[in-house]
Amino acid sequence: MRSESTICALATQGNGAIAVIRISGPDTFRIVDGIFHPATTGKVLQNESPNTIHFGTIQEHDKIIDEVLVSLFKAPNSYTGEDSIEISCHGSLYIQQKILELLISAGAQPARPGEFTQRAFLNGKMDLSQAEAVADLIAAESEGAHRVALQQLRGGFSNKLKALREQLLHFISLIELELDFSEEDVEFADRKQLVQLVEKIKSLILDLINSFQLGNVLKKGVPVAIIGRPNVGKSTLLNAILNEERALVSDIEGTTRDSIEDTMNLEGVNFRFIDTAGIRETAEPIENLGIRRTYQKIEQASIVLLLTEASDDPAIIQRSVEAIRKQTSDGTKQLVVVLNKSDQISESQLQEIRNGIPLLQGERIISISAEKRENINGLTDLLLDMVNIGSLKHQDVVISNIRHYNALKSASESLFRVSEGLSTTLPSDLLAQDIREVLHYMGEITGEVTTDEILGNIFKNFCIGK
Amino acid sequence: MRSESTICALATQGNGAIAVIRISGPDTFRIVDGIFHPATTGKVLQNESPNTIHFGTIQEHDKIIDEVLVSLFKAPNSYTGEDSIEISCHGSLYIQQKILELLISAGAQPARPGEFTQRAFLNGKMDLSQAEAVADLIAAESEGAHRVALQQLRGGFSNKLKALREQLLHFISLIELELDFSEEDVEFADRKQLVQLVEKIKSLILDLINSFQLGNVLKKGVPVAIIGRPNVGKSTLLNAILNEERALVSDIEGTTRDSIEDTMNLEGVNFRFIDTAGIRETAEPIENLGIRRTYQKIEQASIVLLLTEASDDPAIIQRSVEAIRKQTSDGTKQLVVVLNKSDQISESQLQEIRNGIPLLQGERIISISAEKRENINGLTDLLLDMVNIGSLKHQDVVISNIRHYNALKSASESLFRVSEGLSTTLPSDLLAQDIREVLHYMGEITGEVTTDEILGNIFKNFCIGK
Repeated sequence: MRSESTICALATQGNGAIAVIRISGPDTFRIVDGIFHPATTGKVLQNESPNTIHFGTIQEHDKIIDEVLVSLFKAPNSYTGEDSIEISCHGSLYIQQKILELLISAGAQPARPGEFTQRAFLNGKMDLSQAEAVADLIAAESEGAHRVALQQLRGGFSNKLKALREQLLHFISLIELELDFSEEDVEFADRKQLVQLVEKIKSLILDLINSFQLGNVLKKGVPVAIIGRPNVGKSTLLNAILNEERALVSDIEGTTRDSIEDTMNLEGVNFRFIDTAGIRETAEPIENLGIRRTYQKIEQASIVLLLTEASDDPAIIQRSVEAIRKQTSDGTKQLVVVLNKSDQISESQLQEIRNGIPLLQGERIISISAEKRENINGLTDLLLDMVNIGSLKHQDVVISNIRHYNALKSASESLFRVSEGLSTTLPSDLLAQDIREVLHYMGEITGEVTTDEILGNIFKNFCIGK
Repeated sequence: MRSESTICALATQGNGAIAVIRISGPDTFRIVDGIFHPATTGKVLQNESPNTIHFGTIQEHDKIIDEVLVSLFKAPNSYTGEDSIEISCHGSLYIQQKILELLISAGAQPARPGEFTQRAFLNGKMDLSQAEAVADLIAAESEGAHRVALQQLRGGFSNKLKALREQLLHFISLIELELDFSEEDVEFADRKQLVQLVEKIKSLILDLINSFQLGNVLKKGVPVAIIGRPNVGKSTLLNAILNEERALVSDIEGTTRDSIEDTMNLEGVNFRFIDTAGIRETAEPIENLGIRRTYQKIEQASIVLLLTEASDDPAIIQRSVEAIRKQTSDGTKQLVVVLNKSDQISESQLQEIRNGIPLLQGERIISISAEKRENINGLTDLLLDMVNIGSLKHQDVVISNIRHYNALKSASESLFRVSEGLSTTLPSDLLAQDIREVLHYMGEITGEVTTDEILGNIFKNFCIGK
């Protein structure tokens, strides 16, 4: 499995104080020794101990490019399982490019996206679902996304799947042995135990399949569109929610969070608020004004908050609800009517208004006062309830990867055929075929069964340098 | 000098494959031992050897935050000269923030900008001009900027300055000894040698002062405004130059260069082209159309290329030249009239046109064909000539820092008074005072003389984590 080539890439982004360049492969030490000049010892890096750090300069002939630290790792005790070096240099773009250029001139190849992790997989340092978790872990922006990715990286469900698959492999070998003796009507594989095992696998797989929706919410966050005319209180509402539930440490300097403005983290789940500034829908029917733009925003959302004033004409609100409903009725979006400034009217008036807006099943209505901070908690609880975050507490293992979901669905279908076959005493050869299918799909997840195509698809979505 | 506090900060930017968190100060090992759990040895980090790397997990109580590598450095053999650890974690924003949060909970303080480098200076790991070079080195985007910063980091001129200052210190102590014996008219300090030393210092300081303009060009690049009506060939010209002299390795994947679009690197100097799209100046006098906007662009430039077609009416070109000249006559900007599409007219016509556009001293005119790639090299040579890049070859030490420039100017003024005093046999006490001033300004550059204000001004411009 070991690679012939030596690869290099930036492992960090942009120009911070430092940048890290990774090199991995059989020629790593020879290549780096050619450009690195240690400050103190005269030794070449090849003769230094692994897991040590060395100060010196990177040079192009006599010209010093930078003062750097190099960290040495030797096969198999490295991330990739190969000889590997990390060069920690000053974070200037010029230096980063120059060092990469020198490495490439000396025989290293620019790494493809995810190639370091792919090598880690190929060298048996992690299974395929763990390798996939690396990309998720790097992308994790919320506690929930982080939790799902880290659990997967540490072998969360793949260890269980692998153990059960091993047992199933044992059975299939017994059943295939039976086939060799098919004329003698022997039964090496204990059918009762097999039924138990199949039920166990089925149960795990169903749990994992059911966890996918939640896993996806945790991983990707929940896009929420707030629809409402200007001055209806959108910013006030956002500020109110942010004030109540500020993201943990988002104000530590140096950790840029520009890219996730207007994201709020509620109990570890990111709710991403989609800007819908400038959309009006009360005075005239929503159809007439900026429809296309509003609908595009709604299209991206999985929850739509229709923000109105409690004192608005219920008939107009109802018209807006009906207009939006056309967009949300496909079942992928949930609608919440939010009656703002509810403090300005009486409880009985409010009840009347709510009654004047008939809702379909699954649609919600809530009254708040963003300015007075009334019932903001009620709204955030509602949001959490809508993504079913409560079920997370009963769930120790969650999947979030569509590839796993599809493989588990296929495994589940084959499993049901196995169950059926076992109850109807299907001939062993047909039973074996169904079990083989289960084994195939289970193996796809953890990588016991892979094709170049699967690997290519997985790793092309990684960042370079990982 | 040693700091009481332990500081921490991100040393990398954004979310790449990995991120590096730095911790430095007396409690570094205690703090990191509290959250790091080694994967193999049971040892605490405090008992491990310096310059070694350890794999393990960062945990918040029982909850694993990430699998990380930690690199150990012990005082005084670290960047800061203090006990120091670098945590290399997965590049997720969540993980970065969480680890910083844990470090801060355990007693570390968030580092101020440049605080690691400031500590390196205070602990004698580098002088002040070297510390300043660190920020320049990180910001370096071109070979020229890199060269200036690295030379300064490696003590380029500060070693020379320090050595000469030492000698001058020796003289002043002798002169001050003379003052103690002033009634006896002795002369401990050999005036002839002192004159030689002063001349030597003067010569170095003048060289450095003269190198500042070039140093600034190398460090900051040269802003160039291309003024011209739409379709006069601006984009074609940019492409032509880019094609001729493409930046070295800017197309290695993973090194984002988005921020320097339309920058071209000629012989190590960055020429930054300022967008002036949509400005028209031919059919009507430039005064009448988009004046303010054009002038703002010109304001940012140090070279203005007025791009015209060779077949344009020379009188109109001349009107534009005059309008722009009002903006460029302050001596900080240089004007080049570029006659494009010169292939469409004859050589004699071209000569006539050039004669029809009388230029002031320092202004240049050149004819090219951007589309036919004719005389593009002529234009780039002209640009390099205008920034006097040729003189770089005769100059091994270059300054690029306005603080150094100002201190050198002041030192130079005091030096001239010393020279004068020596030639007119000024009383020793007044001579000593002038020499003290020279020592003061020389010491400001390398940091033998500093105030909190100077240090504060220098390090506030650093990035956090350096």
